[in-house]
Amino acid sequence: MFDKIAEVSLLYDFYGELLTNRQRDAMQLYHEENLSLSEIAQEFSISRQGVHDALKNAEKALHEYEQKLGLVRKFTKTREAVLQIDSRLDMLIRENKNNKDLINKLEDIKGIIDGLDE
Amino acid sequence: MFDKIAEVSLLYDFYGELLTNRQRDAMQLYHEENLSLSEIAQEFSISRQGVHDALKNAEKALHEYEQKLGLVRKFTKTREAVLQIDSRLDMLIRENKNNKDLINKLEDIKGIIDGLDE
Repeated sequence: MFDKIAEVSLLYDFYGELLTNRQRDAMQLYHEENLSLSEIAQEFSISRQGVHDALKNAEKALHEYEQKLGLVRKFTKTREAVLQIDSRLDMLIRENKNNKDLINKLEDIKGIIDGLDE
Repeated sequence: MFDKIAEVSLLYDFYGELLTNRQRDAMQLYHEENLSLSEIAQEFSISRQGVHDALKNAEKALHEYEQKLGLVRKFTKTREAVLQIDSRLDMLIRENKNNKDLINKLEDIKGIIDGLDE
């Protein structure tokens, strides 16, 4: 269940801008602000079923974009590799405690990785 | 000029699947198979101007997708960081020629990077 929500949320981060305004609003209120279907229905003055449909259609559209473009898969693969590199660098730093020069250079490389999250 | 072509080509790699079939075909023949506008016009039995418009509309659509989603920018940033890491690792390997164990571990990290292109 958590994985499904995390997946939809990642798809939304990538392709959310391609959804209709209504779909995007519904996704935001439901997934980010954790409102219930009834609360969102009230907010939009539409039926609970209408909100449910908007969310389902949004999820379907997001999955279709990923099926066509595969950019979440592509990006996740690269990010996982970067995390793996980061943990290998940590290992090397631990193993070479007495080599200050090497440690500095390894830390510099880790700095490049940290820069990616800015 | 080269940069503009390279940019369109990168945008096409990312978002090409969102274009219409006609736009995609025109882009492929023009950018990948290097046919002239007239040759493509003949292939599709449409005017040279029609091909020109399909290509212009395709490029415009690709730029709009990037403006909305920014995924080429996001991905390019990560890939550049990975290339930077790779060249730092090369430098460390050159600087530590006599440390076989360290070199092996650095080569392993480079292997993770190489794996990204598969």
